[in-house]
Amino acid sequence: MRAPPGLALIEGGSVTSTPGFVAAGVRCGLKTSREPDLGLLASEGPSVSAMVDTRNALPAAAITRNRRYPRNGFRAVVVNSGSANAATGSPGVDDAEAMAARAAGALGLSPWEVAVSSTGTIGDRLDLPRVVAGIDDALDARSPEGGHAFGRAICTTDAAPKGGAFRVGLRGGVVTIGVAAKGAGMIRPHMATMLAYLTTDAGIDAAALQAMTAAAAASSFNRISVDGQMSPSDAVLVMASGSAGGLSAEDIARFGDALSAVMRWVALQIVRDGEGSSHVVRVLVSGAADDDEAERVTRAVGDSPLVKTAIAGRDPSGGRVLQAVGQALAGAAGDPGVVVVGVNGIPCDADRRDEAAVAMAAGEYDLTIGLSRGDGSSEAWFSDLTHDYVTINTDYRT
Amino acid sequence: MRAPPGLALIEGGSVTSTPGFVAAGVRCGLKTSREPDLGLLASEGPSVSAMVDTRNALPAAAITRNRRYPRNGFRAVVVNSGSANAATGSPGVDDAEAMAARAAGALGLSPWEVAVSSTGTIGDRLDLPRVVAGIDDALDARSPEGGHAFGRAICTTDAAPKGGAFRVGLRGGVVTIGVAAKGAGMIRPHMATMLAYLTTDAGIDAAALQAMTAAAAASSFNRISVDGQMSPSDAVLVMASGSAGGLSAEDIARFGDALSAVMRWVALQIVRDGEGSSHVVRVLVSGAADDDEAERVTRAVGDSPLVKTAIAGRDPSGGRVLQAVGQALAGAAGDPGVVVVGVNGIPCDADRRDEAAVAMAAGEYDLTIGLSRGDGSSEAWFSDLTHDYVTINTDYRT
Repeated sequence: MRAPPGLALIEGGSVTSTPGFVAAGVRCGLKTSREPDLGLLASEGPSVSAMVDTRNALPAAAITRNRRYPRNGFRAVVVNSGSANAATGSPGVDDAEAMAARAAGALGLSPWEVAVSSTGTIGDRLDLPRVVAGIDDALDARSPEGGHAFGRAICTTDAAPKGGAFRVGLRGGVVTIGVAAKGAGMIRPHMATMLAYLTTDAGIDAAALQAMTAAAAASSFNRISVDGQMSPSDAVLVMASGSAGGLSAEDIARFGDALSAVMRWVALQIVRDGEGSSHVVRVLVSGAADDDEAERVTRAVGDSPLVKTAIAGRDPSGGRVLQAVGQALAGAAGDPGVVVVGVNGIPCDADRRDEAAVAMAAGEYDLTIGLSRGDGSSEAWFSDLTHDYVTINTDYRT
Repeated sequence: MRAPPGLALIEGGSVTSTPGFVAAGVRCGLKTSREPDLGLLASEGPSVSAMVDTRNALPAAAITRNRRYPRNGFRAVVVNSGSANAATGSPGVDDAEAMAARAAGALGLSPWEVAVSSTGTIGDRLDLPRVVAGIDDALDARSPEGGHAFGRAICTTDAAPKGGAFRVGLRGGVVTIGVAAKGAGMIRPHMATMLAYLTTDAGIDAAALQAMTAAAAASSFNRISVDGQMSPSDAVLVMASGSAGGLSAEDIARFGDALSAVMRWVALQIVRDGEGSSHVVRVLVSGAADDDEAERVTRAVGDSPLVKTAIAGRDPSGGRVLQAVGQALAGAAGDPGVVVVGVNGIPCDADRRDEAAVAMAAGEYDLTIGLSRGDGSSEAWFSDLTHDYVTINTDYRT
């Protein structure tokens, strides 16, 4: 996948391409497949962190556990796949605490410096002995080359690991941003999760890092939809070692832009790998009354099963898009006004539908929705709704 | 389908089983199939009416046209299927006006006494000459036996016409309620529509009829979901002739209950006939902070593609239901509390999932969601998400 403008993709890079970070991915036996299912990522020296997590009101145990501690103080994360440790009550939170404690001991950290994630089937307790044995193996195996193994270990139904690393040129020098992510919709073994871990050697204080992480997540992970479902385990963790030196005020802004670009880059990989995804659409809404209204329209379009099946069927009529727009604007003040729907700028008029259909066959395109209500705009990425989505999510049985 | 408690189903009844109403259904040629596609329903004497319609901000032409006139004064309705006359701008509204005027002339009514509906593909102008010829044919054919033909003419992708008639015993005597409805999700030829027409000979003033129609629609048509999509053409029209005599205050309340029961009866037929529907679920939420919160939870569950595919796959784990509940409660004040999910009262616990799976195989069941936040409750009916839904909505091309 092409690098965002201004960022240099490191060939073969990973979340541990950032100097000062080590990682490992091992198999502890939670997955019935023989895939790796336990990952460890750690900063070797001092670092600060930032974290954003799910808004789901029934969060998984790892989320509840991490929220007990300052989100700026995580220097490592331990992740298991195969079991989400969700809907497991306070014993589940104790299990998450035990995972952090086990890793912390060997890393010379306090337990509150270790974040925890779990992803996979829900409702069952973790097999803690296996997880603990896996953590010990991962601690032994950790190395600066471990980023790829870590990326594989955090996957569930993902078709492929997602991530990479970039060099970012700033006025004060070059810094690195590495990322490993997982997510393919609300994933087959039930709920699942969007998880992303980013590393950087940029020197930035924790408060600024938290603010730019929240903003970057809002313009990336919060703007993608496979099936409109919010996982109880979603989390984004950024760790910054500062080994590349402190950033000037100007470079802080540039770094924030780069962080957003990297998150969008990997978020788009998640949509492409969405369950059953055969088309990826960027929806661009303009002319809404305000940005909030524009965002409501993008979500209504991106989550509409009628629009998503029309995308899958390459139907260029635009009719279902209008239906979703009208639904999003239900109850809004003022005249809904004229709505123009287009594909890569080609209007979905009766006399240009053949042209639009050709653009839709490309598999990735822009769906533009022009309102005439004001200056609000928004963009988002979503996948289509296909037989494969239904197969993946219907055939699974606990 | 069994009659609601207290109502007597009239065998072979239809929307014209109510004394004083005539109807017809004819073929005018809008549908490419050879099915009837134009319906007319009229009160022969004085009557009052009530109407509720879509909240979609981009309503179809017929909705815009009907809203110009008092909703208590409709004494007839003319409906075409095959073309929705939506996204057709002011020329489309003129076409709807022309339909009403044509029928009004022959019926001896003013145009504002004739309501109009159109359902089918969107974006194209009506073939008005065909529609006008069809209206003339329907006027010629109208009769007290025409209710069944009317019911067939308003269908699009419906597997079967929906409707019937009931006798309702009140203190002051017996009244009749007849109903014809259509709807099967947002319907194959694009948007489509939920339409319902009810007739009664009960004597009730228009203001009371409007209030009870709005309440009845809220507890019936507004509580069903096939795919969570709001049509720009949805409409419910009730016409009351009063020929059975005026109702006492007590009977007005009884009649309102009967009207709600009839609308729920036909709404449930719409869910059963939902596009690709293989299971129908009544979701019952209790213990929410208030009724609004309970309704948010029912909608989040009923619209969730993950829950809908779990229903199709008869997955008894309850995990995806918890995910949807947590999503609905995102940002809600207070502790989300304990959530208990059950199927026909059988809790979806690990040790009773086999029992729950048996109940789910029945095809229709109650999904109970018990919260512990307050006294709010709500119920709704929804269908599942199957390969047939995707096939129906993907394969259609304009």
